[in-house]
Amino acid sequence: MSKPFFRAVGPIGTPAQTGPSMSFDQGALSSQMECVASEIEALLEEIMTPTPAEGERCRPTRLLEAMRYSSLKGGKRIRPLLLVASANLFDVPRQRALMAGAALELIHCYSLVHDDLPAMDDDDLRRGRPTTHKAFDEATAILAGDGLLTLAFDVASRPAVHPEAEVRIQLVGSLARAAGLGGMIGGQALDLAAEGRFADGRPLKLDEAAISGLQAMKTGALLKFACAAGGILGNANARERDALDRYGVAVGKAFQIADDLLDVEGDKSTLGKAVGKDAVAGKATLVGILGIEAAKARLQSLVREASLSLELFGTRGRVLVDAAKFIAERRN
Amino acid sequence: MSKPFFRAVGPIGTPAQTGPSMSFDQGALSSQMECVASEIEALLEEIMTPTPAEGERCRPTRLLEAMRYSSLKGGKRIRPLLLVASANLFDVPRQRALMAGAALELIHCYSLVHDDLPAMDDDDLRRGRPTTHKAFDEATAILAGDGLLTLAFDVASRPAVHPEAEVRIQLVGSLARAAGLGGMIGGQALDLAAEGRFADGRPLKLDEAAISGLQAMKTGALLKFACAAGGILGNANARERDALDRYGVAVGKAFQIADDLLDVEGDKSTLGKAVGKDAVAGKATLVGILGIEAAKARLQSLVREASLSLELFGTRGRVLVDAAKFIAERRN
Repeated sequence: MSKPFFRAVGPIGTPAQTGPSMSFDQGALSSQMECVASEIEALLEEIMTPTPAEGERCRPTRLLEAMRYSSLKGGKRIRPLLLVASANLFDVPRQRALMAGAALELIHCYSLVHDDLPAMDDDDLRRGRPTTHKAFDEATAILAGDGLLTLAFDVASRPAVHPEAEVRIQLVGSLARAAGLGGMIGGQALDLAAEGRFADGRPLKLDEAAISGLQAMKTGALLKFACAAGGILGNANARERDALDRYGVAVGKAFQIADDLLDVEGDKSTLGKAVGKDAVAGKATLVGILGIEAAKARLQSLVREASLSLELFGTRGRVLVDAAKFIAERRN
Repeated sequence: MSKPFFRAVGPIGTPAQTGPSMSFDQGALSSQMECVASEIEALLEEIMTPTPAEGERCRPTRLLEAMRYSSLKGGKRIRPLLLVASANLFDVPRQRALMAGAALELIHCYSLVHDDLPAMDDDDLRRGRPTTHKAFDEATAILAGDGLLTLAFDVASRPAVHPEAEVRIQLVGSLARAAGLGGMIGGQALDLAAEGRFADGRPLKLDEAAISGLQAMKTGALLKFACAAGGILGNANARERDALDRYGVAVGKAFQIADDLLDVEGDKSTLGKAVGKDAVAGKATLVGILGIEAAKARLQSLVREASLSLELFGTRGRVLVDAAKFIAERRN
């Protein structure tokens, strides 16, 4: 594998300001987040626009509409942001990182559609809008989730992600493992089991280690993949990949604690989804075990851990450091 | 891309009898089917056996069990048979074809789990056993389907499928497109729409062309992929790939007509699933439009078409010709 042929257009979201000496604050990060979000939006829109050649007669219009509804105009696109920012450490051409980010975001969106289903979390609201099965119907929501998941691997396999097949196949394999039984889906199953939500179930009393393990799979695996993918695209060396992995793990943990805190302290109108659900479900969370103050202290130490793991990248790691802070401190 | 390094162990299922001059009958085909089926079974069993290193604490046992229940001990494994037989035309090492066949079968199995869900076809029986959501629960069935679909791409990306990343990424992309919006999932959505099963729905009156188009997506795309995959693994030339495509399309059509005939004429105890469902659902099928006798004549002409498309492979195409006959004439 060789280094990418082209230099990146620039650090994320700020094509005019380059160089390692620039300084970022939360305002700068948020404009970069908006930039990645709008680029991902445009890319997903393009990916999910049928070509006229496909013929209208056999076009599953309603399904396509549901797939678009479930993945467009939504979310902060945190995973693509982490992917683009990680890829930027290695001057990966921006369009490649965005394509990989789009594949990753499709996986995230499918997981939300299926998690919201009546047989799962039975949620009516998502990002302030009716969930997919409410806006369409259950059958369409199941198929839309399947369609997004499948499309993710279609996108990840395309040459636009990287000219080298070896790099693309590494991405595909890593993405499948992060999203699969040993990652996101497995974590979701463990979570449902812990809540006693399966037909055979009694709620499980989980200790801190078990909760951490579950969350590392359920939400951690995809976030870790986002960071690792930057290294894969950038042909990072072992030390760099290890640094990204440690950063990804810390950020994954922080993300989950922040999420649990929002469920306790958050506001439904800001979040666009129900709050207080964990307590109602009697769900074991780290916030529940540690208490709010200790959980907040843990968040801070995770942010420090994330920052430290990026030391070898010097000031170039600044965007990722800011992203870790944002993830820990977000209010929605 | 170069030709495979190793010769295949032998024509499928008959490692002791090699050479282009051997003759097959339906009995020989069925012993080969059994052989592929048992090899695929063993491979899926191996793929879905957790390693001790994964740790038992965070193992989603129930989900793994449901994924195994949904994919092991079941089915004729027609898709892997077609894949192995197509790959054999090019002396592809058997283990590679079986790995690709396992990935394909995982996609097929996931589609059955999701199709059987209450919100979809609401079936209680599959292959003579309770469907996954009956044996486990709905949430587990949704996740098991997601898990199998994701695992398929994990498996397809592994070096055991082919040493060249370029070949593997071609397979991944083709599989994703065959299974996605423009293929299987899209066809399933069109089928549900045609039956008026969506929330907004009135049953659609489909003509022959529309039914054929729908079925080419719903069942045809994966069967066509099975045959194409043999050519991808074998580094087939354009003429050979075209021949496999034409064969795959004809076999896909034959498969669907045979399926529709079984729904009319089949026996529940032999099939292991409900019959007469199409009529009850008022479903437009080619058998319904053409009538039983004309549908049977169409089957015969599709088998001839399938055979003719393989002429350039000479007697080596015999297994595929026999498979087409089997698919057209199967009674379960």
